Amino acid sequence: MDNVISYLEGQRTQALEGLKDFLRIPSVSTHPHHREDLRRCARFLADELKRIGMQNVAVNPTSGHPIVTADWLGAPGRPTVLLYGHYDVQPAEPFELWESDPFDPVIRGDNLYARGSTDDKGQVWLHVKALEAHLRENGRLPVNVRMLIEGEEEVSSENLEAYLESHREELGADVVVISDTSMFDYEQPSIGYALRGMAYMEVRLEGPNKDLHSGVYGGAVPNPLNVLSEMLGKMVDGDGRITVPGFYDDVLPLGVEERASLAALPFDEEGFAGRLGLPGSTGEKGYSTLERLWARPTLDVNGMLGGFTGEGSKTVIPSKAMAKVSMRLVPNQDPERIAHAFEDYVRSLAPPTVKVEVIHHGTGKPVLTARDHPAVTAAHQAITRGFGKEPVYIREGGSIPVVAMFEEILGLPTVLMAFGLPDCDAHAPNEKFHLPNFYRGIDSAAWFYEEYGRYAD
Amino acid sequence: MDNVISYLEGQRTQALEGLKDFLRIPSVSTHPHHREDLRRCARFLADELKRIGMQNVAVNPTSGHPIVTADWLGAPGRPTVLLYGHYDVQPAEPFELWESDPFDPVIRGDNLYARGSTDDKGQVWLHVKALEAHLRENGRLPVNVRMLIEGEEEVSSENLEAYLESHREELGADVVVISDTSMFDYEQPSIGYALRGMAYMEVRLEGPNKDLHSGVYGGAVPNPLNVLSEMLGKMVDGDGRITVPGFYDDVLPLGVEERASLAALPFDEEGFAGRLGLPGSTGEKGYSTLERLWARPTLDVNGMLGGFTGEGSKTVIPSKAMAKVSMRLVPNQDPERIAHAFEDYVRSLAPPTVKVEVIHHGTGKPVLTARDHPAVTAAHQAITRGFGKEPVYIREGGSIPVVAMFEEILGLPTVLMAFGLPDCDAHAPNEKFHLPNFYRGIDSAAWFYEEYGRYAD
Repeated sequence: MDNVISYLEGQRTQALEGLKDFLRIPSVSTHPHHREDLRRCARFLADELKRIGMQNVAVNPTSGHPIVTADWLGAPGRPTVLLYGHYDVQPAEPFELWESDPFDPVIRGDNLYARGSTDDKGQVWLHVKALEAHLRENGRLPVNVRMLIEGEEEVSSENLEAYLESHREELGADVVVISDTSMFDYEQPSIGYALRGMAYMEVRLEGPNKDLHSGVYGGAVPNPLNVLSEMLGKMVDGDGRITVPGFYDDVLPLGVEERASLAALPFDEEGFAGRLGLPGSTGEKGYSTLERLWARPTLDVNGMLGGFTGEGSKTVIPSKAMAKVSMRLVPNQDPERIAHAFEDYVRSLAPPTVKVEVIHHGTGKPVLTARDHPAVTAAHQAITRGFGKEPVYIREGGSIPVVAMFEEILGLPTVLMAFGLPDCDAHAPNEKFHLPNFYRGIDSAAWFYEEYGRYAD
Repeated sequence: MDNVISYLEGQRTQALEGLKDFLRIPSVSTHPHHREDLRRCARFLADELKRIGMQNVAVNPTSGHPIVTADWLGAPGRPTVLLYGHYDVQPAEPFELWESDPFDPVIRGDNLYARGSTDDKGQVWLHVKALEAHLRENGRLPVNVRMLIEGEEEVSSENLEAYLESHREELGADVVVISDTSMFDYEQPSIGYALRGMAYMEVRLEGPNKDLHSGVYGGAVPNPLNVLSEMLGKMVDGDGRITVPGFYDDVLPLGVEERASLAALPFDEEGFAGRLGLPGSTGEKGYSTLERLWARPTLDVNGMLGGFTGEGSKTVIPSKAMAKVSMRLVPNQDPERIAHAFEDYVRSLAPPTVKVEVIHHGTGKPVLTARDHPAVTAAHQAITRGFGKEPVYIREGGSIPVVAMFEEILGLPTVLMAFGLPDCDAHAPNEKFHLPNFYRGIDSAAWFYEEYGRYAD
């Protein structure tokens, strides 16, 4: 490994410049007008995989954005890793809140600022660089590796399930490795063992069939913004409990032992609120902040629009109003069941004077991963070497719906090796990757393949 | 009058073409980038007033948009009319819902479609044409006339109060005449005797100091969209009553006689809802639709915005959320008192985890006008001649804050001669003026000046 690590030390500039090129491609999967950028981004990644020596590199078309695959299977008797990541990114809106162009990466301080820098291009790239070092220095990898880097993670991985179903054999492996989450804290690396799931909904109401003058019609017609506010306002009660009927039926309660282990983590409660400009945290009664973030379900309005929202005043009763609402779900909630319960609840709350449309934007299952898998042990050793500090085991509040898919379709457990930071602003303006962790992440990944290679298949 | 009426018959094409030119100027007072269009529109109107023979025509600058004034005072011993109107218009957004360009007037069927066609350029223009006919045919007017046509009616007439205060003498008159409202029904002309007032507010909330990933942070931070929905949802109760403390304290209850008179109006309840695509009307319990529209106060959310509202999904907890809220007020509610009660209520409902800003966009007092003024009688006779049908006396749901100003500052009563129609879409896409009423309005206005001229000053 000495030669691998010293190769990586010599390659830092090239690793960074390559990542910057990757980030310059605005691969925003939710916007149809970026379709060609997604293809370009997939080809860019495939070219790099060919260059470092991966085999069977392919850009696989789907009915949405393509999936990039590659493998290296020259280590018979050794385990096989399926490395998953995504090259698509969240929209950058609102653009005016970015301090620099989201698609022109800039270093300020120790951070690299760009949309996708942490989520997930930077964390994909560090694995590519680790694999490159093994292949360049030793002409081989310590384990077998299959790669699957998709372009639709930010739009609920719409075509991945079908792809996995129809490529079960080509994707055979012992474990899935994903780097798409955040470390517990700035100097505290971590390995994640649970993720929340999600159901993302949109509610559209129509009252009158056209916008109306609020003086001429006000008082005798339904106002869809008033109605929508009232409906959404009822969905979380005074104790922070969600009122969707049956919402908590399948929630796996936290055990005494796990609560104690979460309570033992060095969580900076004051810093958490302070960094967000808040007087304190808030949420469901009877739970700690970490429990609320990781092990309890939520209902958040992600967007709401209706009527006149420009400068000044306009006395209008809007015809339509809409809200995007997502629920983070925990083991063992069933996202499809929750999505339908939400829709039923919306329809039951709506008065007969408004027309209701409920759109299902996508779901992802919550997951819990076993902690005694050899790949988890290897990840622990690798991160300890890469960071010079032992990682802690944590849950994650975010959703990676594909983890559930890998479990269900391929029967594979997942190890979450996290290199992002809690304030990386993955889905917000000024997303950044803390560069020291980018380089430690490369070393950790290189060590992971080495350590995991010590196990027989 | 025969010569005046036959002059007007010969001038219909010219009257319509002149109005179209007036409508082509996009005098949107709320948008700063239309500032020069407002000036151009004021000059256009002033040029027309000079052309028809009005005197002392002036475009008076204000700190906002200019006020156009003119007079003709050659009828000593006769009463003086102060004709008020406005040349500014509402914003045309959302543009995509217009079937034709809002600032390129088009005739479809019997209607002229354009922003401002009814509110209020069309109704100003018909008075100009009536005055032109008297001046051209008889070289004089039957009464003294002062005109005051402002450019800020749609932005709460911000500079009018100061103008009235400093020009009391130049504006001396017996009555104010305003054509800026709608007829009771398609074939039923009317004279308005009461207007609702208004308080227009904006609420801005800030939770976290930046947009956050709803997976990473959801459950432990305040979501300003959830909070704003809950606050707004509480403001109207299940009986359609507004919950702002003290809101109804000063409301003048409807008397038995007035309720009977309103109930006697031939109101088409089914048609009202049907035209709006609604299964029925709605509103405050215990009141008829006309009472809800004219004599009861309201609270409507006019606009709401926060988070991600584009295509697809984005899992964001927004930092900020805003809503525009207006309350229509009835005699004897004090709009300033209500505006402050609203602000206090908003602050009392907001949890300590969000920052609250409340913006006061403007207020207008509700008014009740006496029905035994000679100008009211003259208006009744004039409309009977112009339409061939007696007008009914009605209230109006909309607000014309200036009516209260004329009463308070100049001590003048107001007569509301309405030529718009209930579905003219004054503040909505596809605003239109029903052309038969444009021409009947011109005749009615010509008759009004004649009939009112029969009274001694």
